[in-house]
Amino acid sequence: MPTETAKDAGDHFRHSYSKDRAQLLRRLSRMEGQVRGIARMIERDEYCIDILQQTSALRAAVESVSLLVMEDHVAGCLRTAVETGDAAAYTEEVMDVVRRSLGRPVRARATAD
Amino acid sequence: MPTETAKDAGDHFRHSYSKDRAQLLRRLSRMEGQVRGIARMIERDEYCIDILQQTSALRAAVESVSLLVMEDHVAGCLRTAVETGDAAAYTEEVMDVVRRSLGRPVRARATAD
Amino acid sequence: MPTETAKDAGDHFRHSYSKDRAQLLRRLSRMEGQVRGIARMIERDEYCIDILQQTSALRAAVESVSLLVMEDHVAGCLRTAVETGDAAAYTEEVMDVVRRSLGRPVRARATAD
Amino acid sequence: MPTETAKDAGDHFRHSYSKDRAQLLRRLSRMEGQVRGIARMIERDEYCIDILQQTSALRAAVESVSLLVMEDHVAGCLRTAVETGDAAAYTEEVMDVVRRSLGRPVRARATAD
Repeated sequence: MPTETAKDAGDHFRHSYSKDRAQLLRRLSRMEGQVRGIARMIERDEYCIDILQQTSALRAAVESVSLLVMEDHVAGCLRTAVETGDAAAYTEEVMDVVRRSLGRPVRARATAD
Repeated sequence: MPTETAKDAGDHFRHSYSKDRAQLLRRLSRMEGQVRGIARMIERDEYCIDILQQTSALRAAVESVSLLVMEDHVAGCLRTAVETGDAAAYTEEVMDVVRRSLGRPVRARATAD
Repeated sequence: MPTETAKDAGDHFRHSYSKDRAQLLRRLSRMEGQVRGIARMIERDEYCIDILQQTSALRAAVESVSLLVMEDHVAGCLRTAVETGDAAAYTEEVMDVVRRSLGRPVRARATAD
Repeated sequence: MPTETAKDAGDHFRHSYSKDRAQLLRRLSRMEGQVRGIARMIERDEYCIDILQQTSALRAAVESVSLLVMEDHVAGCLRTAVETGDAAAYTEEVMDVVRRSLGRPVRARATAD
């Protein structure tokens, strides 16, 4: 349905990351361990540089989870664009997550939400 | 044609940013002025903090040009996905530019190029 | 002692972040909660965009912890530079964490580690 | 003079990057060429991905100039801290450029500018 909006179609791919769910949950569980490890380092007054190395690793882990969720979202957008034939709406939907991931203002060029 | 590869289909949206071309060229011309302005500040031994403010502004300008080119590329991917019906290939194409823009290794999950 | 190396002097500020320790531990404990919250969202198949918002918040939290540890390290470098009179060694030490925090190659301009 | 403020002392290292001036000017001149190259690519409707590769290279060039200016500023802060004996003021001065370079709010922990 080309007239369907991105918001309605959102339900179509609401579960699109579920195939990666096990992988995501494993990574998040490891990440929880990383956070606790950094807390232990701070309790033990370990060297700043070693702590910064661990916070860098944690940041990379967060980014890799984001990227995986983003990929599933983009895949959902593409599938729904193909189903609905509405390329423009899903371009906006994709650029929305791209801008967010780059920390830029969202929907910078769109006139409506 | 669902069997068409992303590479062949690339020609379909090769010119997709042309509607934004005037805007892009204006921004690049302004950016050239910014670079020359920073050079002048260095020649005049201006204060580091003031120079860093200008390099920040320049970096933001570069990112906004990238985002505009990326948006045109993503729009092309979506249009071609709708035309060809091949959502998966264009998901990879979109994620490729997203990963590049985040400075992450390209096509991290793909097995082939 | 101007002849003391940055490495030896490291002991001087090994515990420099201890005044911020309570704050750091509180933030890390909150961060652990954030990670578990994201895992729950994934288990419940929540919407990608909502998950990405939470991973962004988590990334910001990681960066704020890094910045706090970095600030304590920089404070330690400055104090030790003043004590030892060796500005050059601690400039390298400070730039080392700055480059790391920007994800750039470490000690790019130094000839030795 | 330990009572001298960071602002007054700023004059001490106002010219601290001058030894790198030739290198900075060479890089900026090359950068101007990069900007013109990107404009030419857009005029010729070249492929988005190729353009994004060039904007990435340009962003890296901007960051390397920032890092060089920042290094000179940090070196100046360290020298002045050693001269004045005021480690705390120059810690704030250094963290100020670090936060700016990370795109974080400036002087987040200071009460006054």
